[in-house]
Amino acid sequence: MALVVQKFGGTSMGSIERIKNAASRSLAAHREGHRVAVIVSAMAGETDRLLRLAREVAQIPNAREMDALAATGEQVSSALMAIAIQSLGGKARSFLGHQMKVLTDSAFTKARIKTIDAQRVISALDEGEIAVIAGFQGVDDEGNITTLGRGGSDTSAVAIAAALNADVCEIFTDVDGVYTTDPNVCPTARKITKISYEEMLELASLGAKVLQIRSVEMAMKYGVPVHVRSSFSTSPGTLVTSEGDLEQVVVTGVAYDKAEARVMLVGVVDRPGIVAEVFSELAQRNVSVDMIIQNVSTSDRAPGAPGLRTDVTFTVAKSDLARVKEAIADIAKRVEALDVRYDEDIVKVSIVGLGMRSHAGVASTMFGILAKEGINIQAISTSEIKISCLVATKYTELAVRALHDGFGLAKEPVEEHGGV
Amino acid sequence: MALVVQKFGGTSMGSIERIKNAASRSLAAHREGHRVAVIVSAMAGETDRLLRLAREVAQIPNAREMDALAATGEQVSSALMAIAIQSLGGKARSFLGHQMKVLTDSAFTKARIKTIDAQRVISALDEGEIAVIAGFQGVDDEGNITTLGRGGSDTSAVAIAAALNADVCEIFTDVDGVYTTDPNVCPTARKITKISYEEMLELASLGAKVLQIRSVEMAMKYGVPVHVRSSFSTSPGTLVTSEGDLEQVVVTGVAYDKAEARVMLVGVVDRPGIVAEVFSELAQRNVSVDMIIQNVSTSDRAPGAPGLRTDVTFTVAKSDLARVKEAIADIAKRVEALDVRYDEDIVKVSIVGLGMRSHAGVASTMFGILAKEGINIQAISTSEIKISCLVATKYTELAVRALHDGFGLAKEPVEEHGGV
Repeated sequence: MALVVQKFGGTSMGSIERIKNAASRSLAAHREGHRVAVIVSAMAGETDRLLRLAREVAQIPNAREMDALAATGEQVSSALMAIAIQSLGGKARSFLGHQMKVLTDSAFTKARIKTIDAQRVISALDEGEIAVIAGFQGVDDEGNITTLGRGGSDTSAVAIAAALNADVCEIFTDVDGVYTTDPNVCPTARKITKISYEEMLELASLGAKVLQIRSVEMAMKYGVPVHVRSSFSTSPGTLVTSEGDLEQVVVTGVAYDKAEARVMLVGVVDRPGIVAEVFSELAQRNVSVDMIIQNVSTSDRAPGAPGLRTDVTFTVAKSDLARVKEAIADIAKRVEALDVRYDEDIVKVSIVGLGMRSHAGVASTMFGILAKEGINIQAISTSEIKISCLVATKYTELAVRALHDGFGLAKEPVEEHGGV
Repeated sequence: MALVVQKFGGTSMGSIERIKNAASRSLAAHREGHRVAVIVSAMAGETDRLLRLAREVAQIPNAREMDALAATGEQVSSALMAIAIQSLGGKARSFLGHQMKVLTDSAFTKARIKTIDAQRVISALDEGEIAVIAGFQGVDDEGNITTLGRGGSDTSAVAIAAALNADVCEIFTDVDGVYTTDPNVCPTARKITKISYEEMLELASLGAKVLQIRSVEMAMKYGVPVHVRSSFSTSPGTLVTSEGDLEQVVVTGVAYDKAEARVMLVGVVDRPGIVAEVFSELAQRNVSVDMIIQNVSTSDRAPGAPGLRTDVTFTVAKSDLARVKEAIADIAKRVEALDVRYDEDIVKVSIVGLGMRSHAGVASTMFGILAKEGINIQAISTSEIKISCLVATKYTELAVRALHDGFGLAKEPVEEHGGV
C-alpha cells in the first residue's frame, strides 16, 4: 500500500466529463489499496475568465483581491472533484488552502510555501477518504488567501507530496510524458522513461513546458519522485527522480526556445567594470539577461574611436526587449558603444544530459553536428549538464532533428510483422 | 458619524457596471464620514450556474461540497467589489466567512449563525477601509465552509450589523422599498415609509418577497434598523424598525400567496386524537401544514357510515402536494374519511397591521369588504396582527384591491398642476 499524490491540471479538469474521468483514475488507485490525495487546478479557462473580470473593474487590480478572486477557480474544481468521486461510490472530502493548511508568505499572486500542516488530510486518509486539495492556493500568517502564481498547482502537488511523505506524485496532463524533444518538430522524438531532477530542471528552464520549474526544484529538494503521465491513457509516462536511480546517458534531451532576443553593443570601450555597468542598469529595470558573450578586444574599428574596443552580446526575453530599448541609449552612451544591434530572429537550441559531466567532447560533437548542416552558431553558453547554442530561427527544426538523432536519441525502430 | 452596513443583492451585483455603481454608493457613504461595511451576494445567476455544475456531476451532490462550491459566488463578488472601490479611489478589503469570522453550526446548505467575531472588520474600519464581506457564507467549528441557504445574504447583513452594533443596515435591492401591496396587482399601492419588525415578518411569511424571513427575525431580536432601498435610486426606501418608532395604523399592508393548495378530508370519524393522527403523519413526511380548519361535527352524511363525522381541511405548499397524495390513502383509511378533495385553484389573501391588537372589528370589516365584492371565503386563519382568507384564485386582484383601498391604504392623490 502506497501513498499516492495525484495532480490533475486544467485540461484534465476541463469539463464535467473530464472531471468524472479524473475521479475514476483516483478511485482506481484507491481501490488498488493505495491512500490517495488529489490536487486539482481550476477548470481550463476559468482562471483567465476571473482575471478578465477583475481587469474589467480596474486596470491594475489589487494583488490581495486578485488572489481571493483567482483562488475560487480551484475551490470550484476541488468541490466538483469530491462530488464526482462520491458519485462513483468513493469517499472524498475537499480541502482548501486555509483548511489544509498551506501556509505561505504574503507575496500575493506569487506566494511561496513556508509550511504545510497535513494533519487534517492525514486524518481523512486514515478514514479511507480520498483527500481532494485545491492547488495553487494558500494562506498567509493573517489568513489572507494567497496564490502561488501561474502553474502553481504543480508546486502545490509536489509540496503536499513532500509533506505527506508520499511514495509518488503523479502529474496528470495532456501529454503522456517528457519527450527527448518536441515531437511536433522531430518525428523521431521518444518518451523518456526516467529522467533526473537536474536534467528536468534544465529542460524546463530551456523551454520544455511539461512541468513548472519551481515544482521540479521542490521535488529535487525533498526527493519526491514525480510521475508525469497522461490523463487520457493508463500507460506509464516519465518518472522524474534522483540520478542514483538512472542509467546514465550522455544526452537525455534536446530543447529549443524562441522566446529570446539578442542585443549586441558594438565597439564598447574595453575597460574594467564596463560589462558590470551594462548589466546593473538592466537589472535595475528588472530585465533578466540569459546568455552573455564578450569577444576579446580588437583594435579600433572606427576612425576616431581611441583605445581597445570589444563587442558585448547578450540575450533577453523578447517580452523584455521594449524595456531594454528604453534603457539602451543611456547605456550605449556610458560605455561609448559605436552601434547597437537587435536580432529577434534567433532560437536557443540546447542539449541536456547528466552524462556530460563525465564525458569529454560533447560540446565539440554538438558544434560538429551543427556545422555539418551548415548552421552558423551565434553564441554559446554552457552549464555542467547542458550546452546551448544560439542560431537563426529558420534552422530550428533542422538543428533540433540533427542534434536529436546525432546524439542517438531517435526512437527505437518498431519491428514490422508481415510477409512470409 | 454613523456605522452603516450596506448589503447588495445579486441584481445589484449583476454586471461589472452594476458592481461599479454599488461601489460608488458605498464610497459616497464613506465620504459623508460614515464607517462602512458592505455585504455582497453572488453576481445574479452565478449561484444557479454553480449548482447546475454540481448536478451535472451527481444527482444529489454532497451538502458539504455544495457549500464549498456555492460559497465561491460571494467570494468572487467580494473581491470584485473591493477592487471596484479601490479603482474609484477608496480603500477597501474583502473578508470571507472564515476570515471575518462568521461561525455557524454544521447544517450544510442551511447553516445558522452562532457567533460573529467582528474584530478584524473593526480594525479595517478603524484604518479607514471599507470592509467588503462575502454574504451567505460562514465556517463551522472545524473550519468547513457553510452557507446560510437561499437569500442568506440578507441574514448575513443583519447579523453582521448586529455584531458591529451598526446604526443601520441598508438592504439595496431592485425595488425601492416595501409596498402596501404588490403594485403589479394594485395600482394604488404605496411605498411604506416605516414598518415594524412584526408586520414585516408577517408580510414576508405571507408572500412578500422583499426580505428573507430569518433576516427580519434577526433584526427584531437584535433591534437592528433595516432600510430597504433601491440600488438604482437615491430616494429613501422603507425603514423596518421597532414599533415604538411608528405611528400605529390598523392595517399596514395586504399580501397574497398563490403557492398553497387546499386538501379536504370529507366525513372523517369524529373521535379525540383524529386530527393529531393526520398531522403527525404529514409531519413525518416533512410536509408543513399552514391553515387547518375543522368544522363542527354533523350527523352521518353517507349511508352506512356510523357515528358523528366531520370535515378536516388544511393547506400545504403546492410543492408538497405530491408527498401529501402519496400519504393520503393511508391517512384516509385510518381516519375513515369518506372522500378526499384537492383544490390548487386558491389564493391566500391577508391583511397585516399592529393596530389590529387594539382595534375591534377588523376581521368583520375584512369579511364585509370581500362579501360586498361577491367573494366567497373558503377558510380563515388569524394571528394577533394578521387575518388571512382563502379564496378562489380568480378573485386575487379583486380581493387585494378591495382590501387595500377599503382599509385606506390607497396612494395619496398627487395634485395636478395645469390649467390657468
